[in-house]
Amino acid sequence: MIMWKVEERPLLYKPVLIEGLPGVGNVGKMTVEYLIQKLKAKKFAEIYSDHFPYHVFIDENSTVNLPRNEFYYYKGGKHDVVFLTGDFQSMTPQGHYEIIEAVLNFSKELGVKEIITVGGYGIEGIPKNPQVLGAVTHDKIIKHFKAHGVTFEDGERVGMIVGASGLLLGLGKLKGFEGICLMGETFSRPMFTDARASKAVLEVISDYFGIKIDMGDMNTKAKELDKAITKAKELEDQMVKQATKPEQDLSYIG
Amino acid sequence: MIMWKVEERPLLYKPVLIEGLPGVGNVGKMTVEYLIQKLKAKKFAEIYSDHFPYHVFIDENSTVNLPRNEFYYYKGGKHDVVFLTGDFQSMTPQGHYEIIEAVLNFSKELGVKEIITVGGYGIEGIPKNPQVLGAVTHDKIIKHFKAHGVTFEDGERVGMIVGASGLLLGLGKLKGFEGICLMGETFSRPMFTDARASKAVLEVISDYFGIKIDMGDMNTKAKELDKAITKAKELEDQMVKQATKPEQDLSYIG
Amino acid sequence: MIMWKVEERPLLYKPVLIEGLPGVGNVGKMTVEYLIQKLKAKKFAEIYSDHFPYHVFIDENSTVNLPRNEFYYYKGGKHDVVFLTGDFQSMTPQGHYEIIEAVLNFSKELGVKEIITVGGYGIEGIPKNPQVLGAVTHDKIIKHFKAHGVTFEDGERVGMIVGASGLLLGLGKLKGFEGICLMGETFSRPMFTDARASKAVLEVISDYFGIKIDMGDMNTKAKELDKAITKAKELEDQMVKQATKPEQDLSYIG
Amino acid sequence: MIMWKVEERPLLYKPVLIEGLPGVGNVGKMTVEYLIQKLKAKKFAEIYSDHFPYHVFIDENSTVNLPRNEFYYYKGGKHDVVFLTGDFQSMTPQGHYEIIEAVLNFSKELGVKEIITVGGYGIEGIPKNPQVLGAVTHDKIIKHFKAHGVTFEDGERVGMIVGASGLLLGLGKLKGFEGICLMGETFSRPMFTDARASKAVLEVISDYFGIKIDMGDMNTKAKELDKAITKAKELEDQMVKQATKPEQDLSYIG
Repeated sequence: MIMWKVEERPLLYKPVLIEGLPGVGNVGKMTVEYLIQKLKAKKFAEIYSDHFPYHVFIDENSTVNLPRNEFYYYKGGKHDVVFLTGDFQSMTPQGHYEIIEAVLNFSKELGVKEIITVGGYGIEGIPKNPQVLGAVTHDKIIKHFKAHGVTFEDGERVGMIVGASGLLLGLGKLKGFEGICLMGETFSRPMFTDARASKAVLEVISDYFGIKIDMGDMNTKAKELDKAITKAKELEDQMVKQATKPEQDLSYIG
Repeated sequence: MIMWKVEERPLLYKPVLIEGLPGVGNVGKMTVEYLIQKLKAKKFAEIYSDHFPYHVFIDENSTVNLPRNEFYYYKGGKHDVVFLTGDFQSMTPQGHYEIIEAVLNFSKELGVKEIITVGGYGIEGIPKNPQVLGAVTHDKIIKHFKAHGVTFEDGERVGMIVGASGLLLGLGKLKGFEGICLMGETFSRPMFTDARASKAVLEVISDYFGIKIDMGDMNTKAKELDKAITKAKELEDQMVKQATKPEQDLSYIG
Repeated sequence: MIMWKVEERPLLYKPVLIEGLPGVGNVGKMTVEYLIQKLKAKKFAEIYSDHFPYHVFIDENSTVNLPRNEFYYYKGGKHDVVFLTGDFQSMTPQGHYEIIEAVLNFSKELGVKEIITVGGYGIEGIPKNPQVLGAVTHDKIIKHFKAHGVTFEDGERVGMIVGASGLLLGLGKLKGFEGICLMGETFSRPMFTDARASKAVLEVISDYFGIKIDMGDMNTKAKELDKAITKAKELEDQMVKQATKPEQDLSYIG
Repeated sequence: MIMWKVEERPLLYKPVLIEGLPGVGNVGKMTVEYLIQKLKAKKFAEIYSDHFPYHVFIDENSTVNLPRNEFYYYKGGKHDVVFLTGDFQSMTPQGHYEIIEAVLNFSKELGVKEIITVGGYGIEGIPKNPQVLGAVTHDKIIKHFKAHGVTFEDGERVGMIVGASGLLLGLGKLKGFEGICLMGETFSRPMFTDARASKAVLEVISDYFGIKIDMGDMNTKAKELDKAITKAKELEDQMVKQATKPEQDLSYIG
């Protein structure tokens, strides 16, 4: 079951869809929400599905809303842009396919032919200067993004892209879309929203579209993240020390 | 799969749907069943679904019935009322959406434009005088219910409403309905059906509709509940004491 | 997904559907298979579903067949009879509803108006002379079967009937069928197929339809069961003794 | 949800479908992929489903693709051949039925009337000269394959065939297809892809179709497997020895 609430049918010039939904390091959602905020993009549509959770949220003004994904548009730059973000991805495998197919059909109606999906790529250590890795629907796209600093590793490290960021490209390809997934390198800890990875992706997007984006707030977030990481690392070090204390200490117990 | 058994198509004046299905503290079901009984509301329809359990109940006269939700109507007060209650909510997430959508379509045919859903809001302690919290589809509704004693906390404590009580409002809003969820404060223990929370909600509903409801039986239930709580608390206290006795007591065992 | 393989459309006189699928004590399946064999009922249709397991069986002649349920008919007695049996019930809750609805539609086409479902009712001990309990779609049916030895307890002990035996009556009732579930008392151990419970149900059916059924083989099975139970009980007694030996025996270890 | 990408509609002479998807010992997939490679079969269609995983793979050239099953054709021999292979079977029971039904409908359009499915049959030990066991849709097929060395055991050892290899025959039979499942005896260890079992099946297929297949690479793989097995066996023997050392060795510990 898919339901749409469409408030406006914008006329868009060569629109590109940029998707950022919750996922690894929350890089996708953070990046797209930042773009929406800084570019003052306008919300114009919502998609609802029975594959989202079966509850409503109570908002600040005591009103309720179903879980949903939201569409915004921004006019300007080399292309107009349609943003897709939200609080959830599908809770079921089949739902992923159903929702993404609906999003693609809607995007086609809007004139979208190109899709950029944003995600995080979890690595072992903490990346000081996170790279942005790319994976494309068609190899002719690679050169356009290499010029803007994206790294292509031919599936060496990243082997698959799970969920909306992957399916939009995979299903999109079958339906005549072209696109790329931009993955900011991030460390694999669920409690952090990775502002540094997001910043790296934002720079690629800003460069590619020729849109100037105010990076002030993102820099602040990145610095706060640095502090949080340092703190968390100290804590971890202490815990490791505690756990690996020499055995003789234990002899006092018994 | 949805199946309907509609025994009568009542003509109703500005009908309001009041839903109370099993949930936290059983407040919803208890409240609506009490209203049905005291107002002598008339059953006129049943809804069946393959998302209810796949068994039949054997009733007192040895006859079998599928799990179902039931509709009753009551004529009188400022509005006529349609009640929705039953023994189950959907067993699956998708089923919740399917059943609630069917209920909303049916309600629209009956002329319903306003929905009141009833639930419990589980809190830590035992509320002596439980408040009734509200969450609405549209903020213009807030003032109507504030006047009848409902508290609105703007999502501070309650963050979401799960299941039928939430979806009826969330999906309903998309389909042009207005409504409110009335949540009686209750303590989070599954073995109690919370008559005090139910009583608090009943008073709001009685006041809002200008219907007089005989509270005698509910007062009795609330008193029985008080006794049961006192007993349970004593038991708990004993168990806690037992479990935290000083260790030397154990030396007598072996 | 439902698929039918119908080899013949028999003309039947006031046909009654008798269902016996795998379940508690395997009473349903055993009873109906015995009737099919003794009455030389003829197979005329098969039903397939994607809610049965996704494998094929390899039969004795090295040929493969999907899991399925099978229909047989028997002409004679006060009514013609349609039998429904098979190796599986649905593997999913939704599938139960889908398959049973298809079976009911098919039965309606055959002229069936009355349904008898057969199952086991698991009790604590081992019933020497198992009763047959009944639950009906309409209470007017009770008197017909009381006359043939069925016990009606008004939901006191048995509270629900799970799966095909329940849904055929529950959904059937909604679609205009009348019927009864005959439950042979059986002990709740999965390794036994309960011939005594089955025999008790067979006697009710034989009596109700005025059909003579050769009970020879069923009596043999019942005797074999008696021996198996005695053996199993001895084994259990030994195991219980072993497990509850006085503690001092253990003192030799340390 | 089923999606097709059909690049060519080949005209085929009495085509036979040969299926080999991931499964026990990976015998099916390995066999069919080997045939595709050695016969230079041509890819002409892909099938996609929401019952495959909800991710894309990143290929060597940094392009993404959804999980899918693929169709190849080969012209030559007594029959033209359609091959079906891929990286996945359905992730859900219902999906198995849906995908196989789509494959059968597609095969019918191509003129396919006969189906050969390839799988592994896991046995206890390590088969030096693995047999090929057969199971058929119709017993008249048995004699054709007995002549080419296939063993038929009438369901004695193998009782069921799970997944695509089974359903293609089971559902196919209902839709008018004839066919056989060829099962190479293999040992039940998940880490090995069993080249010897695959070789045994390849010889049957080569013989049946009168197609010459270069066995060089498969012989190499079989030899590598022999070495890997010998090594694994030595390792296992060591581990068993370690685990069953006489108890007195332990006396030195305490």
